[in-house]
Amino acid sequence: MDYRKEFIVAPGQKLRLADVDPAYKGPHESHETAAPELERYSQKLGQMQTLLYAGRKHSILVVLQALDAGGKDGTVNHVFAAFNAQGASVTGFKEPTPLELSHDFLWRVHPHAPPKGWISIFNRSHYEDVLITRVHRLIDKATWTERYNRIRDFETELHESGTTILKFFLHISKEEQLARFEKRLDDPARNWKISESDYSERELWGDYVLAFEDALTATSTHHAPWYVIPSNHKWFRNLAVSQIVADTMEDLKMSFPKPTVDLADIRRKYHAAVLEEKKAGKG
Amino acid sequence: MDYRKEFIVAPGQKLRLADVDPAYKGPHESHETAAPELERYSQKLGQMQTLLYAGRKHSILVVLQALDAGGKDGTVNHVFAAFNAQGASVTGFKEPTPLELSHDFLWRVHPHAPPKGWISIFNRSHYEDVLITRVHRLIDKATWTERYNRIRDFETELHESGTTILKFFLHISKEEQLARFEKRLDDPARNWKISESDYSERELWGDYVLAFEDALTATSTHHAPWYVIPSNHKWFRNLAVSQIVADTMEDLKMSFPKPTVDLADIRRKYHAAVLEEKKAGKG
Repeated sequence: MDYRKEFIVAPGQKLRLADVDPAYKGPHESHETAAPELERYSQKLGQMQTLLYAGRKHSILVVLQALDAGGKDGTVNHVFAAFNAQGASVTGFKEPTPLELSHDFLWRVHPHAPPKGWISIFNRSHYEDVLITRVHRLIDKATWTERYNRIRDFETELHESGTTILKFFLHISKEEQLARFEKRLDDPARNWKISESDYSERELWGDYVLAFEDALTATSTHHAPWYVIPSNHKWFRNLAVSQIVADTMEDLKMSFPKPTVDLADIRRKYHAAVLEEKKAGKG
Repeated sequence: MDYRKEFIVAPGQKLRLADVDPAYKGPHESHETAAPELERYSQKLGQMQTLLYAGRKHSILVVLQALDAGGKDGTVNHVFAAFNAQGASVTGFKEPTPLELSHDFLWRVHPHAPPKGWISIFNRSHYEDVLITRVHRLIDKATWTERYNRIRDFETELHESGTTILKFFLHISKEEQLARFEKRLDDPARNWKISESDYSERELWGDYVLAFEDALTATSTHHAPWYVIPSNHKWFRNLAVSQIVADTMEDLKMSFPKPTVDLADIRRKYHAAVLEEKKAGKG
């Protein structure tokens, strides 16, 4: 099954989140039946990163957005585990600092774009500036509409310089969110994370859905598509994201650069002589 | 066995690398017999990082230095695999750019120091500025001696602000290096990395040993110790580094912060009501 086709927000087409079942599992029964496929895509991600790093021609930007407890952290951990940390980075975008707020909204984001050969994962991103700010009425419609233009232009700039952009909205149901909050209450190692605002934000659920639908519709483009990933089942979410990233990287048709030295010459000059010497020294 | 005691460069004591057997394996026969211990320390590293991240009181800086093929990349991958990428970062320091060279040698390093709650791993570091530069006679004795002072002061500054510093020299034999170079020659996926300078640097082996001995002796302090890790056996190197980092973090005696909300109150206000509602809706 090609989850790229299944979950893409088709450019130019209006997204309705109600049309996507957050509990969807594809052809799989459970984590167990999906495990071999998960493993295969993890390995493929690792192989693709090795080629990406060696070639230094392309870079990958993965953007993750979701409502609270939607699984951004879990997705980062799963996908990142397949990568070599030297060549991949995660940036979390939290509430902007006063300095960041005194700049245009892309100022704090741009420095974290991936250089050639690298993968950057954004845990939250410049999209917060058309989502949370809109829901909390910190900006008006003219501003968020203009920001859609700025975002499209920014992503075009990255694309033009060799960055492949993949954006994921991790879609969970409101019931699933509450169930996840409950697990936090039951886990002493996570109690410290709980805040009352987790719950007050739930009351804005409908506003967030509208803001996401609008933003994703406006910014899903051929070179920087959005995917809406059914995420009630964490293993299915991991599988779908891994497959989409791995298959997109495979389409870049990367190969290892040619050696810059004559390998036979290196063997003759250094390995033969030193092995002789070692033998003589030991014999 | 406490590898901290065994491999520390005791502050104030002259290091002689010839005294450390790079093929040392401790009480272990092989990777297989060491595997349970390796797994245990990986898990401990993960637990310690969770506490570090939650508490936001301490930070950890791990510095890795070695000769070519000494295993810096492999160590990063092994140790990093135990961590959550959101709270850990790796910085590789390559040949400085013209901009970096136009600043003092710590200028490019300081921004990558770990903030509270985080772990930073340096793959190469500010120590290159007293090693490769010295061996290639880019600086004179007065300069590297003065740089030792600058490095000690810099590390004191980090320590004073809550950073625990651990520095590792991965010690391999000259024969092991050649064997590793040979593996690169035999592996088509790594051929592109080979350069003639890998071999010409080998001729400076003795100079590097002297430079490392001098630098490590001058900069191993109580709050920022150097450890010389026998690294011919990769699994032993991973075990020793993991144990030293994990045990050092354990000594910080961290605990989870108290919740900022009244958990019983949260349960009553949000979970009870919504569960009722759900039942009513479904019933």
